[in-house]
Amino acid sequence: MQHKKHDDALRKTTYKVIFHTDTPAGKLFDVTLLIIILVSVLVVMLDSVKEIRDDYIDLLYAAEWTITIIFTLEYILRILVHPHPQRYIFSFYGIIDLLAALPTYVALFLAGTHYLAVIRALRLFRVFRILKLSKFTDAGSAIAIALKNSKSRISVFLYSIFIIVIVIGSLMYLIEGPDHGFTSIPRSIYWAIVTLTTVGYGDISPGTDLGQFIASLIMILGYSIIAVPTGIVSAEMARMNKTNRKRCKVCGCEDHESDALFCKNCGESLSSD
Amino acid sequence: MQHKKHDDALRKTTYKVIFHTDTPAGKLFDVTLLIIILVSVLVVMLDSVKEIRDDYIDLLYAAEWTITIIFTLEYILRILVHPHPQRYIFSFYGIIDLLAALPTYVALFLAGTHYLAVIRALRLFRVFRILKLSKFTDAGSAIAIALKNSKSRISVFLYSIFIIVIVIGSLMYLIEGPDHGFTSIPRSIYWAIVTLTTVGYGDISPGTDLGQFIASLIMILGYSIIAVPTGIVSAEMARMNKTNRKRCKVCGCEDHESDALFCKNCGESLSSD
Amino acid sequence: MQHKKHDDALRKTTYKVIFHTDTPAGKLFDVTLLIIILVSVLVVMLDSVKEIRDDYIDLLYAAEWTITIIFTLEYILRILVHPHPQRYIFSFYGIIDLLAALPTYVALFLAGTHYLAVIRALRLFRVFRILKLSKFTDAGSAIAIALKNSKSRISVFLYSIFIIVIVIGSLMYLIEGPDHGFTSIPRSIYWAIVTLTTVGYGDISPGTDLGQFIASLIMILGYSIIAVPTGIVSAEMARMNKTNRKRCKVCGCEDHESDALFCKNCGESLSSD
Amino acid sequence: MQHKKHDDALRKTTYKVIFHTDTPAGKLFDVTLLIIILVSVLVVMLDSVKEIRDDYIDLLYAAEWTITIIFTLEYILRILVHPHPQRYIFSFYGIIDLLAALPTYVALFLAGTHYLAVIRALRLFRVFRILKLSKFTDAGSAIAIALKNSKSRISVFLYSIFIIVIVIGSLMYLIEGPDHGFTSIPRSIYWAIVTLTTVGYGDISPGTDLGQFIASLIMILGYSIIAVPTGIVSAEMARMNKTNRKRCKVCGCEDHESDALFCKNCGESLSSD
Repeated sequence: MQHKKHDDALRKTTYKVIFHTDTPAGKLFDVTLLIIILVSVLVVMLDSVKEIRDDYIDLLYAAEWTITIIFTLEYILRILVHPHPQRYIFSFYGIIDLLAALPTYVALFLAGTHYLAVIRALRLFRVFRILKLSKFTDAGSAIAIALKNSKSRISVFLYSIFIIVIVIGSLMYLIEGPDHGFTSIPRSIYWAIVTLTTVGYGDISPGTDLGQFIASLIMILGYSIIAVPTGIVSAEMARMNKTNRKRCKVCGCEDHESDALFCKNCGESLSSD
Repeated sequence: MQHKKHDDALRKTTYKVIFHTDTPAGKLFDVTLLIIILVSVLVVMLDSVKEIRDDYIDLLYAAEWTITIIFTLEYILRILVHPHPQRYIFSFYGIIDLLAALPTYVALFLAGTHYLAVIRALRLFRVFRILKLSKFTDAGSAIAIALKNSKSRISVFLYSIFIIVIVIGSLMYLIEGPDHGFTSIPRSIYWAIVTLTTVGYGDISPGTDLGQFIASLIMILGYSIIAVPTGIVSAEMARMNKTNRKRCKVCGCEDHESDALFCKNCGESLSSD
Repeated sequence: MQHKKHDDALRKTTYKVIFHTDTPAGKLFDVTLLIIILVSVLVVMLDSVKEIRDDYIDLLYAAEWTITIIFTLEYILRILVHPHPQRYIFSFYGIIDLLAALPTYVALFLAGTHYLAVIRALRLFRVFRILKLSKFTDAGSAIAIALKNSKSRISVFLYSIFIIVIVIGSLMYLIEGPDHGFTSIPRSIYWAIVTLTTVGYGDISPGTDLGQFIASLIMILGYSIIAVPTGIVSAEMARMNKTNRKRCKVCGCEDHESDALFCKNCGESLSSD
Repeated sequence: MQHKKHDDALRKTTYKVIFHTDTPAGKLFDVTLLIIILVSVLVVMLDSVKEIRDDYIDLLYAAEWTITIIFTLEYILRILVHPHPQRYIFSFYGIIDLLAALPTYVALFLAGTHYLAVIRALRLFRVFRILKLSKFTDAGSAIAIALKNSKSRISVFLYSIFIIVIVIGSLMYLIEGPDHGFTSIPRSIYWAIVTLTTVGYGDISPGTDLGQFIASLIMILGYSIIAVPTGIVSAEMARMNKTNRKRCKVCGCEDHESDALFCKNCGESLSSD
């Protein structure tokens, strides 16, 4: 029983080191893990460059397996020390952690290893775990809240974009036709998106005078309506800086910053009691 | 007479189902219609892709006619149940609904069916009907009001863009000339728009040193003045977030800040009692 | 003397019609002039399109001379009826009006008429005269004031852009070299501007791995720092919507909209007496 | 000793002229230096243009040496008159000043002079010294503060961009493959950055239908999320416009709104008496 108690204590300590960052050991663990994750992503990338793969195939292979084994051990350890293993396994991070280790094993049985590159790229999502615990969380959630509050406005905006590019894509298909690369309506819509978003590859570009005229209109439209999502998010973020609309009991002033504790006009406390 | 009454009741119920979405039956009708509309737009698109048209011509033909008949029946039904049929027929949505059904019939008598693709693409506008009734309306009208309030500022901005591209287009026509693709002033203006809006196809690009220098200036100009429409819309949206639309009982003014207790125009209390 | 008086009255009436728009006759004159100006700009443009010039040379020639004579007569008339002719002649609009008429006469003595196209394009500036008097003035001056207030911040921003593109241009010249189109530092700077402003023609694009890596950094930089001028102008425009910082004598509240006449908190008049 | 005193006075005067701009002599010195710096940057640029170097090699050589000698003398003078020479030498500007003079001497012993062009381009940083003292400082520091306050939010944004382009780059590498220019994951990531930032060179562009569909999604994503950094900076700048930096005497808090009369943290009066 003494033994079990000791095990339990070890488990708890390990849990804290692995799942939290507020202890020095936890921080060290997370930073080490972060570096391994970045290295693992780098290995996937370099593996896709033909010249590097040809020259360093053994080194990449060794790195791949070393990382996979580290990730596997870490995954097993996380399951062992977590108070509710099944909760961890089916959590977002649990799945990502599994996906980070799995592809290399699968590759043993499959020929086209490079099809696993995307799944291996999912490893990068692991980095979020570390960031989740840092000072970036506040900033991240501020952005997330602003976007969430603006969701319906942004949906309307995207929906309008969607209709505009379909109508203009169809129109350009008729005006330009297959001779200038507008071989079908979907491809014309692709061109309309390339143009409206001001990307402008130039792989397809209008050749007729009328086509160039309409293209000009879309460009100016795209250039101007970028103001809409920008305006939505800017206004929302400005509003969030000012969310404390507690009315001061003395002077009635309501225009306080979100972190204000006292009324800026009369110095009265803004606490609600 | 009993019969007529029954007819009237049926007509009213059908009217509610078709024209409103606040009943379960109305919602179901609208969602079904939305799916048919999206399918109809998809059919038009796929029909324009040569490989798909060649392989699935019969299927597309069948889908086209099925959708057309559904739209025709729906259009007739809308006329029958509407309390003021002529009001519906000449409304914006009435015309769109007619245009959604008509092209297929017209194609029976005309050879070049693909010229009807654009009109058929107008079907997408039908989707607005459904959105009109949903929670997107508020967001949509907020954007619309912000744009309307900014209308004169945006007009001045677009007008300035218009003058800038004409002057720069003319200038580049002289500097670069036909050798580098600047074959005429309208084409040079097209290039100026492509550049100022930061689209940058690359189908026409300056070849001379002076031309590249002037092009650089336009790019930086275009990159900077995007701030103007963005600033206009952002400021307007920020202002709208702080505005309540309580109507002053004395002067009728409606544009008050959200925390205002008294009308800014006449000093009258805005409290609703 | 009676005759002179009558002349004077005529002169005054004509002056009002030509220089002001607040009478029906003045409005009619301005709208007519606006149309002639737009036609004159159109003629210059069409004249530059080879196919159109070849086919309609006589028509364009006739239109050019008709417009020139109208502009000449209008210019003379403006001088005759203006109370201080020399003041008009040397004003901004006086010079533009002269430049609008002159090029066609100069072309009589010069061979390369197309070099006058740019000067003729200056005619478009004439349109400002009409807009100056309309409701657009307020919006235009609001934008102008916002830009003026942001002048020093925007200068710092442009100056930073200027340094960034020179440093990066020099760097890319060394990395990519003449083989990939980076033939000189000025050309590399041109490329850096094309990239930073997100125009991206593709006439010059990095070919080496290091070059593409650095290019990626500039793109993300350019994509992010667009937020700076936008933020400057947005904040300035938001501030302008709120410029009336009169402190209410009763409650001390200072947060009023620019057109507020009464305090929003206590209904007290904000007039300064 | 009299002599030493005179030397000291001279040294102090020279120090003021060289290191400060608030005297007429100091201003003249700075403006002259600014012009020499700009000329020196121009010489580096022109030297990289093959045609100009071939024709004016002697002139450029002479200009290069003249500027180098001026910079050398200025550097020595700055060391001599500065009260704490070593502090100046190891300051940011001290290093820049040294780097501005050094490359030409190094080029005496090295063949490939053009590799020094970038270091010579660093001379441009010298211009900051002059701007540091002018009215641009306020504007510059306002921008700097806004960016600093937004640092964590912008980091989260950039980090998200980083993950998005890696995932999409990996995905496109699989979909498009080497045939359409997506030869490796790093190159696909380069393409994803080119697309997401709306630069759109067109040196690599998707050829398959699925690739074009995914590309469309990234473009719309890139077009929309530009709103995020813009919103962050706009909101921050709007907040700064409303902030005075009066320091509360009790709690030391400095971040108050411009119309605040009492500290928002402790309710203490902010009046300065």
